[in-house]
Amino acid sequence: MESIIVALAAGGAALLFAAITAMRVLGADPGNERMRVIGDAIRNGAATFLKREYTVLAPFVIVVAVGLWALIDLWTLENTVPETAIAYLAGTICSATAGFIGMNVAVRANVRTAASAMRGLNPALRVAFSSGSVMGVTVVGIGLLGVTVLYIIFQDVTVIAGFGFGASSIALFARVGGGIFTKAADVGSDLVGKVEAGIPEDDPRNPGVIADNVGDNVGDVAGMGADLFESYVSSIIAAMALAFAGAGAGLAWDAEKAVLPLMLAGAGIVAAILGTFMVQSKEDASFEQLLWALRRGIFAAAILLIIFALVIVLVMDLEIEWFWAVITGLIAGIIIGLSTEYYTSYSYKPTQQVAETSLTGAATVMISGIATGMISTVIPLLAVGITIIVAYELAEFYGVALAGVGLLSTLGITLATDAYGPVADNAGGIAEQAQLDPEVRERTDALDALGNTTAATGKGFAIGSAALTSLALLAAYSIEAEIVAVDLLDHKVIVGVLFGAMLPFLFSAFTMKAVGRAAMSIVNEVRRQFREIPGLMEGTTDPDYTECVDIATKGALREMIVPGVMAVAAPLATGFVLGVESLGGMLIGAVGSGFMLAIMMATAGGAWDNAKKYVELGHYGGKGTDAHKAAVEGDVVGDPFKDTSGPSLNILLKLMAIVSLVFAPVFLEVTPLIEKIT
Amino acid sequence: MESIIVALAAGGAALLFAAITAMRVLGADPGNERMRVIGDAIRNGAATFLKREYTVLAPFVIVVAVGLWALIDLWTLENTVPETAIAYLAGTICSATAGFIGMNVAVRANVRTAASAMRGLNPALRVAFSSGSVMGVTVVGIGLLGVTVLYIIFQDVTVIAGFGFGASSIALFARVGGGIFTKAADVGSDLVGKVEAGIPEDDPRNPGVIADNVGDNVGDVAGMGADLFESYVSSIIAAMALAFAGAGAGLAWDAEKAVLPLMLAGAGIVAAILGTFMVQSKEDASFEQLLWALRRGIFAAAILLIIFALVIVLVMDLEIEWFWAVITGLIAGIIIGLSTEYYTSYSYKPTQQVAETSLTGAATVMISGIATGMISTVIPLLAVGITIIVAYELAEFYGVALAGVGLLSTLGITLATDAYGPVADNAGGIAEQAQLDPEVRERTDALDALGNTTAATGKGFAIGSAALTSLALLAAYSIEAEIVAVDLLDHKVIVGVLFGAMLPFLFSAFTMKAVGRAAMSIVNEVRRQFREIPGLMEGTTDPDYTECVDIATKGALREMIVPGVMAVAAPLATGFVLGVESLGGMLIGAVGSGFMLAIMMATAGGAWDNAKKYVELGHYGGKGTDAHKAAVEGDVVGDPFKDTSGPSLNILLKLMAIVSLVFAPVFLEVTPLIEKIT
Repeated sequence: MESIIVALAAGGAALLFAAITAMRVLGADPGNERMRVIGDAIRNGAATFLKREYTVLAPFVIVVAVGLWALIDLWTLENTVPETAIAYLAGTICSATAGFIGMNVAVRANVRTAASAMRGLNPALRVAFSSGSVMGVTVVGIGLLGVTVLYIIFQDVTVIAGFGFGASSIALFARVGGGIFTKAADVGSDLVGKVEAGIPEDDPRNPGVIADNVGDNVGDVAGMGADLFESYVSSIIAAMALAFAGAGAGLAWDAEKAVLPLMLAGAGIVAAILGTFMVQSKEDASFEQLLWALRRGIFAAAILLIIFALVIVLVMDLEIEWFWAVITGLIAGIIIGLSTEYYTSYSYKPTQQVAETSLTGAATVMISGIATGMISTVIPLLAVGITIIVAYELAEFYGVALAGVGLLSTLGITLATDAYGPVADNAGGIAEQAQLDPEVRERTDALDALGNTTAATGKGFAIGSAALTSLALLAAYSIEAEIVAVDLLDHKVIVGVLFGAMLPFLFSAFTMKAVGRAAMSIVNEVRRQFREIPGLMEGTTDPDYTECVDIATKGALREMIVPGVMAVAAPLATGFVLGVESLGGMLIGAVGSGFMLAIMMATAGGAWDNAKKYVELGHYGGKGTDAHKAAVEGDVVGDPFKDTSGPSLNILLKLMAIVSLVFAPVFLEVTPLIEKIT
Repeated sequence: MESIIVALAAGGAALLFAAITAMRVLGADPGNERMRVIGDAIRNGAATFLKREYTVLAPFVIVVAVGLWALIDLWTLENTVPETAIAYLAGTICSATAGFIGMNVAVRANVRTAASAMRGLNPALRVAFSSGSVMGVTVVGIGLLGVTVLYIIFQDVTVIAGFGFGASSIALFARVGGGIFTKAADVGSDLVGKVEAGIPEDDPRNPGVIADNVGDNVGDVAGMGADLFESYVSSIIAAMALAFAGAGAGLAWDAEKAVLPLMLAGAGIVAAILGTFMVQSKEDASFEQLLWALRRGIFAAAILLIIFALVIVLVMDLEIEWFWAVITGLIAGIIIGLSTEYYTSYSYKPTQQVAETSLTGAATVMISGIATGMISTVIPLLAVGITIIVAYELAEFYGVALAGVGLLSTLGITLATDAYGPVADNAGGIAEQAQLDPEVRERTDALDALGNTTAATGKGFAIGSAALTSLALLAAYSIEAEIVAVDLLDHKVIVGVLFGAMLPFLFSAFTMKAVGRAAMSIVNEVRRQFREIPGLMEGTTDPDYTECVDIATKGALREMIVPGVMAVAAPLATGFVLGVESLGGMLIGAVGSGFMLAIMMATAGGAWDNAKKYVELGHYGGKGTDAHKAAVEGDVVGDPFKDTSGPSLNILLKLMAIVSLVFAPVFLEVTPLIEKIT
């Protein structure tokens, strides 16, 4: 019981801290008249998108909730209270709320970061990072409170998994929809503005520029927040499910195992909050010093977590192996993060080599970027592989789940360093549009460059945790579905593995094509405005920013439906047609190819982005040369890779695993189609 | 016994037919003086490459053979006769011989096709296709004879698998080495010639032009021949192994099952030879008519095979289910072929859409090509998945193996339609260099365009057969390794699956980077010659073609070593470190991601190639526009995708499976490292 109180207290503390930090952000100077106008436009655009997105999702959520109530609560579990449906709804509402709060602070922090940058680097870092902290700590606070409350009320694994399912479905749509919005607006406005009209990026004359800024907020802040909210709760749920799952099969369930993840998460929140206080920089700090400012916070939180975890295990007299399992996850996370940084930062050889290939044109940039992305799968794979083996030897699949919890426990601060990036990026855009002193733009650019590095690390983190969590969920699913063995020599399992391996490819293709289509509609609108609005190019008339935001919104929402529904339908179809074992095979097939593809896309995208920046620093001819043009082409390809398709894959993997877990009791009641035929 | 005689007779007939056809090809007019000089240069370059390649491979082959003798024959099987080592050597020699013969006819057919094209389209088609037929029929003839003779002598599955291992290792190096050579020469000479110097493709002033022609022969003819030789014998071996494999485990082995694959292969050879007689075209045939001329031969062979297979099953009084299993493979092959054609031909929407994206630059061409490649995995996956389920329900894994045999049984003619393409391509190059009448080039271009379509179909075929054969080999391996279940809930199996899923990514990265490095050395040499040889650009001095051939040769041979050794080492390392079950997981993980990646790369490459051609036909502005430039960039990226990395993956999958099968008895004797540690 004490542990429940600890979890609730930590969750509450998180929300309190988030509220105080948010007030500090909002109290900052919002800048001059022109900046406030721009800031308002971004804020309104982002709010409109989020409102419409949630409106589109509402019917989907209701249909799924009714389905869960009928199929699981009523028919399978024969419950009068629609517990699973309630948990599902709670998951969707919590996820949407976390995204809403985080984004609302972020859109207000943009303009305030730009204003603070007029005073110096450190004030700007403080505002931007504080805004990121609000997002990070809100996500972990709401996540932990949600899981804990549901645990207190229902104490049933399928029900709690319903919460994860709710979080997953919002995450999927938010990531996919937000990802499509942001990249369509970015690519679409750049293609016409930079390439055709020859005006700089973020130029106020470009009709797509506000849509581009809105996109940073709805994709990289709200979308990523929902994504990691889901990772976070799923990792906890997976660990709890493995403690619980024995219950149905007649084994005694283990209360200690069930509450340890909650305790660890609570400790992680405290560690993360303390860590945020370590993030400080002096004026005129170098890139390394700024990076170290953020890293110091992350490392401090990690060290605190290790201490807390050891204390928890010792005080509660738990098995010491569980502590070590947590550590394996933390180490895997660090290794994956460092590996991602190595492959995507222009301080190291891989990205420099990609930059070098720009001398021979866009094609060689593509080939080298993709090859770098492919090679970069090796270290994360080995890190995850070794973690699985060690954690399993320590505490079986529960150990693997604990490793996932360990990896994500300090999410409060890692997410903060990640979510601060788009705020700094946007502040730069506002500085450009408000025609502030170039010095301001230099400061925001410094913060933005830092954000690219932390974002790459964060992506590696998200992918690693997705793999561990999916596997833990797979283990929980197989217990729930009463599977004795998922035998690879069973032909249905083989077909499941192949089918699962195909899904990430299909899903990526859908999301990439969606970005292309949505970007084309922005291109046409921007072209139309340049053509039809007199005085636009001369800067005497303002473009119609709202129309571009509208078009991007409609495009993104239309395009997110098919891949979203597919992700929910694929595991159900496999389970009902080929049976539970085949579904197990499908899940691991999807993790296998999806993990690789996600890393490949994230790394290739990051390497291209930074290779372009490296060329812009003056290497291989610098800006304006053919080499630079080739490098820019690489960056454009990398955009949907790293910000839409790649991150969406994480959610696909976890969502399919959690759908399988939630529906496991239903599969048990139904004879798969193939057995009826043969 | 009668069946053995049938197989031997069919194999002998194949070689006889090949010899007669080869004589007909060599009897054709070799053209004028200039053409013969060029033809000789290509022939010498190709012969030199093959000689050096085999010289580099010899030590590798000897080391492996000694290893097999010591580890398997002596230590595990306790045989005094080094049976496995002998079978392995036989496999390498047979594969090398088939590649040597096929390529030697092809390099002589190039110039003769060009000469025949001076007389008309049909004579040129006859010469080029006859040369392809020699390759196709030689491959199946030698393959079938080799397997049959080894079966007669040793009657042991591990030993016969050694033959497949030999064929695989040659195939891997030939495919990778040849693929690197051909694309390095192609990309390297185009980058300097077309892009920098502004001279047309195949211009005799380009020092890399002969190397490019040599590459077509050593990569697309010799490499592909070795690849499909290996597919062909592996499919037969997999089926025989599943009939045999019971032996060790105490089950009675089934002679009928063991000889049916040989009979089917024999029937397929007869069907293929008869089919080649159907390939005729009239003068001034349209593209559709030419395509139909080739298709008629393929369809005739397929129908004949169905009749023969039914007769064999009925006369030998075998289970009728086996007949149906063969048919499922044939149907899967046709569906995969049609799907590949749909996604890569510019007569259909997908490639047209890729072409359309060239309007917005190289980046959008990349994105749309990759997305198309990813989507194109769906139909082949479903075809293979349904085939596995149906074939398994018919006759368990033996049925799956028979489906693989069915898919490849008419290889004699499908390979002929495939191998004829590079001959026609080269004939066009010779026509250009010898400055023949433009009409001649038009004719060879028509044949070449046809070759691109049949090559795409052939690639789909090769990938589908690789998947089915790998799975059948996996099944055979698991019986040999006495595996009861490869349980996906075993953490070592999970790690195996993930590790396996990573390997195709790593392997593709290696081969792509290798092409890049080798191409750069060609670029430097071509640049040097343009700079240093006076009168070269004016056409008064000949360039030093040999030096470019030499550099490409050295580059390719150097670069093929690491990926080649990796493919052999990975399954051994997994087996010895994590154990036989984990290795089973690794194999299926590799099939899962490798199958998808191979299809994606083949389709994307084909779609880019044909999108460029579509633009060149005058769409979206046609030649010389920015759209055309963007489409060309796509094609350059597609080159290593479709001709080096993609096809190499097929061999990787089969090679790893066959290494596992061969070493299964050794794994049984050794405790895996992980069990010693934990």
